[in-house]
Amino acid sequence: MLDIKVDLGDRSYPIFIGSDLLGQKDLLKPFIGGQQVLVVSNEVVAPLYLDNLCAALPDIDVDTLVLPDGEQTKSLETLNLIFDKLIGNRHERSTTVIALGGGVTGDMAGFAAACYQRGVNYIQVPTTLLAQVDSSVGGKTAVNHPLGKNMIGAFYQPQCVIADIAALKTLPGRELQAGMAEVIKYGLLGNFTFFEWLETHIDSLMAGDSDKLAEAVKICCEEKARIVAADEREGGQRALLNLGHTFGHAIEAAMGYGVWLHGEAVATGMVMAADLSWRIGHISQADAQRAKHLIERAGLPVVPPADMDAEQFLSLMSVDKKVQAGHIRFVLMRELGDAYVDAKVDEVLLRETLAAGERLCQ
Amino acid sequence: MLDIKVDLGDRSYPIFIGSDLLGQKDLLKPFIGGQQVLVVSNEVVAPLYLDNLCAALPDIDVDTLVLPDGEQTKSLETLNLIFDKLIGNRHERSTTVIALGGGVTGDMAGFAAACYQRGVNYIQVPTTLLAQVDSSVGGKTAVNHPLGKNMIGAFYQPQCVIADIAALKTLPGRELQAGMAEVIKYGLLGNFTFFEWLETHIDSLMAGDSDKLAEAVKICCEEKARIVAADEREGGQRALLNLGHTFGHAIEAAMGYGVWLHGEAVATGMVMAADLSWRIGHISQADAQRAKHLIERAGLPVVPPADMDAEQFLSLMSVDKKVQAGHIRFVLMRELGDAYVDAKVDEVLLRETLAAGERLCQ
Repeated sequence: MLDIKVDLGDRSYPIFIGSDLLGQKDLLKPFIGGQQVLVVSNEVVAPLYLDNLCAALPDIDVDTLVLPDGEQTKSLETLNLIFDKLIGNRHERSTTVIALGGGVTGDMAGFAAACYQRGVNYIQVPTTLLAQVDSSVGGKTAVNHPLGKNMIGAFYQPQCVIADIAALKTLPGRELQAGMAEVIKYGLLGNFTFFEWLETHIDSLMAGDSDKLAEAVKICCEEKARIVAADEREGGQRALLNLGHTFGHAIEAAMGYGVWLHGEAVATGMVMAADLSWRIGHISQADAQRAKHLIERAGLPVVPPADMDAEQFLSLMSVDKKVQAGHIRFVLMRELGDAYVDAKVDEVLLRETLAAGERLCQ
Repeated sequence: MLDIKVDLGDRSYPIFIGSDLLGQKDLLKPFIGGQQVLVVSNEVVAPLYLDNLCAALPDIDVDTLVLPDGEQTKSLETLNLIFDKLIGNRHERSTTVIALGGGVTGDMAGFAAACYQRGVNYIQVPTTLLAQVDSSVGGKTAVNHPLGKNMIGAFYQPQCVIADIAALKTLPGRELQAGMAEVIKYGLLGNFTFFEWLETHIDSLMAGDSDKLAEAVKICCEEKARIVAADEREGGQRALLNLGHTFGHAIEAAMGYGVWLHGEAVATGMVMAADLSWRIGHISQADAQRAKHLIERAGLPVVPPADMDAEQFLSLMSVDKKVQAGHIRFVLMRELGDAYVDAKVDEVLLRETLAAGERLCQ
């Protein structure tokens, strides 16, 4: 088992990475303060792992709540179901909320924990690759608003994160691909060595090689932990984690949340960011194509939706949280493995990227 | 003008107390970071002060949202109206939310600011005595759930608080009384000298004497600032601020939120706490009666609702946030001006208090 520490002063917490961790009571128990637990899961993950997790909590008063699956459930209405359960079953301030599932479950359970009685403990048990490498690290929790993604939320740190690599065996292939988009992101934004490692091992990773997956999750968590420790509330460096997300959020909003998976939208968004980085004169066209090629080998989409035009992109991107004083802020690359924030992108070049469609990076 | 600093490290903020502060742009401007402001007010306060406040923001893009008045509006549904406004008008992360109104407005606007884009700046401009002495200090924000008061919220600090004593001139008498309950609370829980000062000046205060009111607000803010600085997240000392609240919340819940004003319920709750403190053997019966008498002189209710029996009190108090491991935690008094937390109250004595009705402290 691997053990990483996210260093945030009195809000520091460990991430445990390994196979078959989910049912180990010795791992979970030290992080539960009171006598009550609410496990929040979803209808896909619960039948596979809920019993196993609950069996690891023998002396605790455990309630469970199984929510519908999917990004479209990440709403204030669904959040209220968690509050109803906590209040209806008289959970006290010493209770612990455990999120068992993907990023949506983690975001909602984490935000509910942040708000219930103004903050109770929570533990993340991410069961998707996306959640293991990204949404379970860094304390971002949120729900969506009909007009914007992740618009309502909190920065709130868990007591610990348990990333069980064995859970990835039951993950649908499309979800594994979507998670790999965020894995590739860490290579592109700040670690060229890792990008090259991914070029070498992408086929084994996509075939579900546990050792390689554990190594990838570990490196991504370390990269993110380092960035988050330096910038907990997204003043500067943390913004780099949004590589591909400004374009990606627009795709998700245009298609309706959940039609494209988050990772799929980010994948195409990263290809658009590579394309724009090339047009601006930073990375070479060959490097832009190299990024696109790795993303394509992971089975991810590299072409934006055919029915989205530049105007729709611009309109949707201008409500994104990354807007400051009216300027859309893009995360672009100076080189592969070296991202930066650009708030003054030339609109002509931007429109070329938005109109490129199948010819991105060409 | 008086100026108090609430000392919370990098979340420290000032409280300004004085007459006619609300329209002073030099006071407000340094605390507004971006170019956008949303002023949240209610239908009672807005016609009196909204134009005046907006005139103090001449170079800012100001939106306003006027909510219905009253505790029953403090819900997730109303909170969502604030999010709709912020997102619909494309407020960026640099926006500032200003709460103009009483405790309900401050709680909702503050919680919305805590959650919008995971946290934007906010400023409290409390216009009721209750909000000036209590709910605008300390960073507690929340909305109610049908099963419990303030169950969903956040600890979130404002950039500054502007307590305009002139706004109390338009406050209905019943609201002034309700606010005075919290003023008296600070005397009872930790400052006997202030309790005696209140005995001397209660008639001038209730007659609306501005100088005396300013002095009372200042002392209460100092008392609360001191307690909050020592214990921001309610681990210990801060719990003393709940004097009268365990009983009071039960009364509010039983009667339906808004039927009794919060301060009225707390007033009766403090009389019940004095009664129980006497029965347990701490304060003398004379002191319990002295506390009751001051509360009565402020025009506040000192008898719980006739149709609430002990069982209803016990049931409602056991869902309160102050419950730990099944024990109801009461804030009681060793002496007038010296409160403490008691988690092991004798149930026989507690039932005597709950059944005393008109004969509390007798």
